[in-house]
Amino acid sequence: MTTSSEASPPRTLADLVTPALVVDVPALDRNIATMARFFAEGPCRLRPHVKAHKTPAIAKRQLAAGSCVGLTCATVAEAEAVASLTDDILIANEVIGEPKWARVAALARRLRLTTAVDSRRGVEGLAAAAQAAGARIGVLVDLDVGQGRCGVRPGEQALSLARLIGELPVLELRGVMGYEGHVQPVRERGAREASARESMKALVDTAGLLRGAGLACPIVSAGGTGTYDISGRVPGVTEIQAGSYALMDTDYGEVGVPFVPAFFVLGTVVSRPALDRIVLDCGHKSATKDHGHPVVEGVAGARVTAFNDEHAAVTVPPECPIAIGDRVRLRPSHTDPTVNLHDVFYAVEGDRVVDVWPIVARGYPEHRQGSL
Amino acid sequence: MTTSSEASPPRTLADLVTPALVVDVPALDRNIATMARFFAEGPCRLRPHVKAHKTPAIAKRQLAAGSCVGLTCATVAEAEAVASLTDDILIANEVIGEPKWARVAALARRLRLTTAVDSRRGVEGLAAAAQAAGARIGVLVDLDVGQGRCGVRPGEQALSLARLIGELPVLELRGVMGYEGHVQPVRERGAREASARESMKALVDTAGLLRGAGLACPIVSAGGTGTYDISGRVPGVTEIQAGSYALMDTDYGEVGVPFVPAFFVLGTVVSRPALDRIVLDCGHKSATKDHGHPVVEGVAGARVTAFNDEHAAVTVPPECPIAIGDRVRLRPSHTDPTVNLHDVFYAVEGDRVVDVWPIVARGYPEHRQGSL
Repeated sequence: MTTSSEASPPRTLADLVTPALVVDVPALDRNIATMARFFAEGPCRLRPHVKAHKTPAIAKRQLAAGSCVGLTCATVAEAEAVASLTDDILIANEVIGEPKWARVAALARRLRLTTAVDSRRGVEGLAAAAQAAGARIGVLVDLDVGQGRCGVRPGEQALSLARLIGELPVLELRGVMGYEGHVQPVRERGAREASARESMKALVDTAGLLRGAGLACPIVSAGGTGTYDISGRVPGVTEIQAGSYALMDTDYGEVGVPFVPAFFVLGTVVSRPALDRIVLDCGHKSATKDHGHPVVEGVAGARVTAFNDEHAAVTVPPECPIAIGDRVRLRPSHTDPTVNLHDVFYAVEGDRVVDVWPIVARGYPEHRQGSL
Repeated sequence: MTTSSEASPPRTLADLVTPALVVDVPALDRNIATMARFFAEGPCRLRPHVKAHKTPAIAKRQLAAGSCVGLTCATVAEAEAVASLTDDILIANEVIGEPKWARVAALARRLRLTTAVDSRRGVEGLAAAAQAAGARIGVLVDLDVGQGRCGVRPGEQALSLARLIGELPVLELRGVMGYEGHVQPVRERGAREASARESMKALVDTAGLLRGAGLACPIVSAGGTGTYDISGRVPGVTEIQAGSYALMDTDYGEVGVPFVPAFFVLGTVVSRPALDRIVLDCGHKSATKDHGHPVVEGVAGARVTAFNDEHAAVTVPPECPIAIGDRVRLRPSHTDPTVNLHDVFYAVEGDRVVDVWPIVARGYPEHRQGSL
């Protein structure tokens, strides 16, 4: 197989085999700096979410920019992938099953590991694994603050689960979390603020309830790229789990946050069957469309009209001089699942490829070592 | 990192780390046999499409079942992944760019390689690469038979491109192809038949036009899982490029073809925040939703109501006895992009894991070897 490792290494965008996932390093660093600056000011801190990029090289830059208390992960595999970069990781998700609990306990022996729980089963499983490993695992009670997915109800139900955790010496109750995921995409700023504040009130009030009952609650964790500057300024919220801000997609672009697009899928024009239509080699296997078709960059008047598995059909003005073989950039509509389709980021400054960053936690790394 | 390779190898579904992609081998083999039987009868043959599964272990079973003239691929990397399994590969897609043309030429030195073209640029690029490699590359003129994506117009435009190919001794004109992709999802059988026949008429007529002009046209290639038994019985169509039939998704299930679901995503219940709601650890990063939410199997009355990046929120009847930690099967709505999210298939017979099949051509294999 002739591959890029046998051929000359890529030096510029023109050398890349397409489709390719490309990160614009100066834009990435600008986003990371903008977010770090925001959290340098308040008592609330940032805990960047790894699930958006799954890439240690990016997590490293986020931590280096400051204002971070550690990293947020969605899965045990993500936590394992970044465990060498920080001594403080939150798995902001329910972890269930003996093998995963054992891996959480193993991580908890290496660093300050905290994970979310919303069930007695989750608490008991973590406790048993901690006991077996001789570890102490930090726990946040996960509240449903309006998203309607995971989480116990704020108030008494949360208190009851917190009490259970408090009784188990191998677990350390570290507070509460509540992801206002339903608020992130709300376009209108006033509505977004009102909804985020309502969610944060439920979260902060529950933290108060726990403290009033004599329970520890140092961490009150919430937020995302759409609400970091709302939830992150609510008194009592101690950290924000934003992730998408670093790379930015067109969907979050609609929300009016001060971050710039920092990644794209590079494709090649493989067909121009009509003057007003080109077809690219990058389709739905290179970028998801759950938040809409990607946006074509740098070709005036171009618009993706069909986004099939292997192809993007793009309407162009008939006078557009674009030709078969030309390269085209697509801005994806949804960062996290798009990055998850690729194995590496090509890191560029302008047109120059300066590095290749493995997306270490892409997919389900456990299965890449799977064998019978 | 504690992984399944360090732990005991998976023996049953219960041993798998979730989310996991699972193929039901007896169901797969039944689908493969059903399709092979159909093509055993007619003059038209089957050329299974690798893009649906990207898995040499599955392609091998398709070839072993008979009635096949070779394999179909969408990309050069897919062709490279299955090149050791067959001596006849069609890349049913436009290949553009010097490095890819060189790889096509390299393949053409090893086996009977045919690729689609719809432009002068494509023809010239292939010819130059064939010349440089001392190879002869087979070519099909790609026609737009109604899908409105790639392809030249049937009739004179196709003849003109065919003449150009015929003039170049390093290329071998092998016929025409026309993918009636717009017809595949048409639910109503009568409408699907009418539309497929219209597309096939344009294709077969153009083949006749080429032959009338003294050009070779042994291959007339078309079809998919939704039209194999329509287009595959149109006189003059010589081979069908179906792919999804082997694994089958819920979307094709709606079309009424005689194939059974043969793969699923295995997830774990990680939360039951309300009696009527469970949450699974397998979301949009484990199965795409471009053809609708996946379908829950084996849990009466269960329905996916939200399918987020990491979670499936599932409504269940309040009396449902399902508990945190239980395993649940999701039937994906769209085979090709779902398989493309995973690195391996766990091959099962009943609950027993009998093999692990690497999805060798997942993503863009070129970038996995990428380095600076």
